[in-house]
Order: sequence, then C-alpha cells, then structure tokens
Amino acid sequence: MGGDQGPATTVPAVAAFLRRHPHTRILLFGAARELPSLDCYGGRLTVVDCPQRLDADERPAQALRHKRESSLWRALAAVATGEAAACVSGGETGALMAMSIAAVGMLPGLVRPAICTLLPTAPGGRVGLLDLGANVDCDAELLHQFARMGAARLQVEGVANPRVALLNVGAEGGKGNRVVKAAAALLETDPSLRYTGFVEGDQVLLGAADVVVSDGFVGNVALKSIEGVARLLLARLRGSAAAIWRRRLLRPLLDSALSFLDPSQYNGASLLGLGGVVVKSHGAADAAGFGYALDVAHTEALGQLPERIAARLAVAGDAPAAG
Amino acid sequence: MGGDQGPATTVPAVAAFLRRHPHTRILLFGAARELPSLDCYGGRLTVVDCPQRLDADERPAQALRHKRESSLWRALAAVATGEAAACVSGGETGALMAMSIAAVGMLPGLVRPAICTLLPTAPGGRVGLLDLGANVDCDAELLHQFARMGAARLQVEGVANPRVALLNVGAEGGKGNRVVKAAAALLETDPSLRYTGFVEGDQVLLGAADVVVSDGFVGNVALKSIEGVARLLLARLRGSAAAIWRRRLLRPLLDSALSFLDPSQYNGASLLGLGGVVVKSHGAADAAGFGYALDVAHTEALGQLPERIAARLAVAGDAPAAG
Repeated sequence: MGGDQGPATTVPAVAAFLRRHPHTRILLFGAARELPSLDCYGGRLTVVDCPQRLDADERPAQALRHKRESSLWRALAAVATGEAAACVSGGETGALMAMSIAAVGMLPGLVRPAICTLLPTAPGGRVGLLDLGANVDCDAELLHQFARMGAARLQVEGVANPRVALLNVGAEGGKGNRVVKAAAALLETDPSLRYTGFVEGDQVLLGAADVVVSDGFVGNVALKSIEGVARLLLARLRGSAAAIWRRRLLRPLLDSALSFLDPSQYNGASLLGLGGVVVKSHGAADAAGFGYALDVAHTEALGQLPERIAARLAVAGDAPAAG
Repeated sequence: MGGDQGPATTVPAVAAFLRRHPHTRILLFGAARELPSLDCYGGRLTVVDCPQRLDADERPAQALRHKRESSLWRALAAVATGEAAACVSGGETGALMAMSIAAVGMLPGLVRPAICTLLPTAPGGRVGLLDLGANVDCDAELLHQFARMGAARLQVEGVANPRVALLNVGAEGGKGNRVVKAAAALLETDPSLRYTGFVEGDQVLLGAADVVVSDGFVGNVALKSIEGVARLLLARLRGSAAAIWRRRLLRPLLDSALSFLDPSQYNGASLLGLGGVVVKSHGAADAAGFGYALDVAHTEALGQLPERIAARLAVAGDAPAAG
C-alpha cells in the first residue's frame, strides 16, 4: 500500500517479479478490496488482507502504537516469525525504521539500522554507500560496524573480498575530522576487512572502492547532491533538446546517460543491522523501480545477509590491536 | 607562480583583467626571469621579483618558516600592509591557509578562515556554499559565524538581504545531528540574519537559498559529489557523441549544459574571516578560470568584505535571545 501510487505500482512489479523468479512466493499485505484479482500465479501469490492504513504524515511513534493491523506491521511481523524471508515497502522511512526495529529487532550491539544503497559506478560496477541518513551522530565504533555490514552486503552481490573505504575530505592520511581519523585507525587494524583508505566525494562513483562508509549525515548529503545534480543536468539537456528533430536524435544518447543514474535502477535501500531482510523502495518509484527493490530483497535473502552481518559483528570484539 | 601552469595561466589572465577593469592595478609576485615583458599597461602592472619558490608538496609549517621570500608570502604581506587590496593565488590550499593566517591575520573570534564558493543555481542565480573543508570539526557557534560571513559575502554580490539556510538531511524541524539542531536554534534567533531553515543536498543548486551553511566536512563532500557527478555525466555524453556528425549537432547543447557547472565559471574560493581579501584559484584553472578568481577578489575588495564580516561578527555577542 506504500509509495505514491500504492497497488498501481506494487502489483505489476510483483507480477513481473514472480515471472523473473519462478521459485519464489509473494505475500502481498494490503487492503484486499483495493487489489485486482490475483489468482493466476498457481498459489505463489497470497494476498493478506490488512484493514488498517498508515497516514502519509503519521508519526512513527504513533504508527508503532496504533497501527499493528497495518500492512507494514503485518509484513514485518511475517519476517520476524520466519513466514517471510524479506520485506519490501514503499512506505515512509520513519515508520518503516521504527516498526522494523520493534517487529524484526536489531542484531546485538546495534541500536538503529544503517541505510545502504548500491550505486552504479562509471567502470560498470557498483558501490555500496552507507549510512544514508538513519544515524546522523556517529562515533568511530559505529562507522566500524557500518564497514563490516557494508562488506557483508557486497559479498551477497558476489564480491568475494570487498574493498572498503571511508568518505573523507582528502585522500591522504591525517585528513578529516576526529571521528573519521579514529575510524580509520579501527579499520586499518581489522583483519576481517580489506580497508583501502579514504575516498573523496568526487571519487565515489569512479569505482575506487566497493563499500564507502560515512556517518548518516554526510552520506545523505552526498547521495542527495549526486541525485540533485544528475536530475538538474539531465533536465537542462532535455530542455535544450525540445525541438522534435533534435529529440529524435538525442533520445538514445540521453537515455543511455540517464540510465546510468536513473534512480529506479538503483532503487531499493537496505536496512542493515536488523535480524531480517528489510528493503525500502523510494516512494516515487515506478513498477520497474519497485521491481529492483524486490530483487535487492531477493538477493539479500538468498545470501542470508542478516546471518553474515551477525557473524561479522560478532568478531568485532576479537579484532587484534595491530594489523 | 602557483597552479599547474604558473605564469602561462596567470599572465594572460592578468592582462585580460586589466583590460576589463581600467581603474585597477596589479602587483604580480613571482620570478621575474620567468615572466614575459609586461610594460605595456601604463604602469598598472608591476612585477615584484620573488626569488623563493614553494614546492608542490611543501608542508605548510615548513613553508611558513622558511619561505618568507616566496611570491605567496610577499603577496599576502602586501595585503597585510594595505599595499594590495586583495591577493589571488593558485597555490596549495594548505600553504595558502597557513600563510594567510600568519601574514594577514584572523578577525577577532575566529581561528581559521572558512572557504566559500559561489555556485550557479538552476534559476540563473548563485548560491554561496561554506565551509568547504577548512573546518572539519565545527560546533554550532562556528556554523553561526559561517552564516554571518556567508551573508556578508552575498551582500557584496548585490543581494541586499541574503536568505541563509543550513544544509541538513531533511527539511523539517527536528531533523539533523546535534550540531545542526543547535545551530538552527542560534540562527532562528539572530535578527541580523534572514534564516530560512534547512535545505537538503539536492536543493542546493535549485536556488532556495542564497547562502548554504555546513561544517567543512559536509560542505567538502557535497561540493565534490556535485563536481564528480557533473564531470561523469558530461564525459559519458561526450563519449556517446563521438561520431563527428553527432558532435556537430550536440556541441552547442553540451556546451550549454557544461557551462552551467563548468568549474572555471565558479573558480575563486574566498577565504572568509581574514583581515583582508584572499582568494584561492583552483590549481587546474585555465586563464579564463583564473580571471574569474581575479574578479571574485575585485568584487570582494570593492565591497569591503572583511570590514562587513567584522561588523557582522562584532554584533554576535549582542544578539537578543528571541527573534
């Protein structure tokens, strides 16, 4: 029911997902009377009727207390009981975060999930960026946990030994604020990580690292700056190409540039650190975008991401002091 | 002598500047034997021979101690004595920062300059972004000073009552880390500022504010993220337009998109908080770019920016507690 379009987006995305992944099942939580007839998937699609609805501006604490019959809570509860392997939602981040913590629970040692998104890189790979806004006041130990969680995330993408970097204002040692310098000292001496040093804001998309770690404040500003300027440049180019004859010539060109940073192509932000797989789809995502978020959840569930993260976090206390 | 190309960039830039501004004079500090004959400007261009040279990787503390006959120190000393109204340099930021503080001095209450750059906005205006990396550990009081300095900077551009915003992870009150929330409380109750609230990373270039304030860590990451994705998208478009017939059609289009975020068009970062005008030109800037930096210094000197900033900082203690 979440996202700007609700079932108009999620239902076609789910149908396409079931075709792409013939061995999966979907539990669709929502108001059954608003959903089309969906009995053509041989039992692989089950609608779970949830009468309650979250308001768009509902405060997380409020939702948590009064909306336990909402589709969001019921879907998260299904992850908690093991009935579902993952939950994907286009709902509000605040409510999703609060309900995820309450329904699914955090892994030991963590208070809030970190938000992680995979962005495409110029060489054709991808980079995991975290945290993107859930933790705006971080100490070095928390950045260290982000590094371990991000490495686990990239491993389920098939990157055997992910290169982990810290986002900083310079590439040389000695640069940065107190927290980043302290985090670098922790990462350098962690034998479970392939730490490659600092990267600057203009290097994130160039493929120098597989995981880029920052506090949620910096990561959020970086991601939104990237999205903002990409949208702006493409809008200007599209505007310049308004004449029809030009548009016909330029469309393939613009589309190829656009696809590189098309938000729907990297839709699906992972909430890392929970006891189960929870993925946030952007509220404005279309069916293709929601489908990407479903694929993210599928990959994370198959790769047993929460278990990997738990294993990586558990060795944190055992890290030797020198590398 | 600074920047990647030294006099090959600065000399033509200076010549063009003297043509644009017939009532100005230039003192050109450098190795006289490396400079072309420059006696055709009716006494408006004076070469000051400086035998010492800063090395590219020279440590600021080292430069400060041993390079007082360098062009950089001598030019800054000329600002300190009032012989020059402003200094523009393409040298290393670290050495420029250290020497500026030592030679020109900070205004009362400040320890280090804040770096401020004007970026073009989509509606065709400009936005001043600070700090861009000089102060990576900031408290709310320092962000408050940045706000006052940024407002003064935009005033010398002719913006009578600049709208000042704080860079944050959300636009609503209650969002952000501890420092940003505390800074918002200070800015809200400062009657000398037109504080308009929070802006997010994707709003900076949309013209919602005239001044956007952040700590140097966040500002640096934001600026570099913007520059990085702009360069990347334009390189991809250029690559796609490699065929000659396409290139001919596309060049005007790309150039108009490029000019929007062409670094040479917003070259010239101001070091705010010093007792005089000091502007940093990007090391890779060409003659046109260095010319923009000269124009920035010219505008700031004519607008008596250091005096404006000093006046704004002086009232800081007198601000009433409620707006």
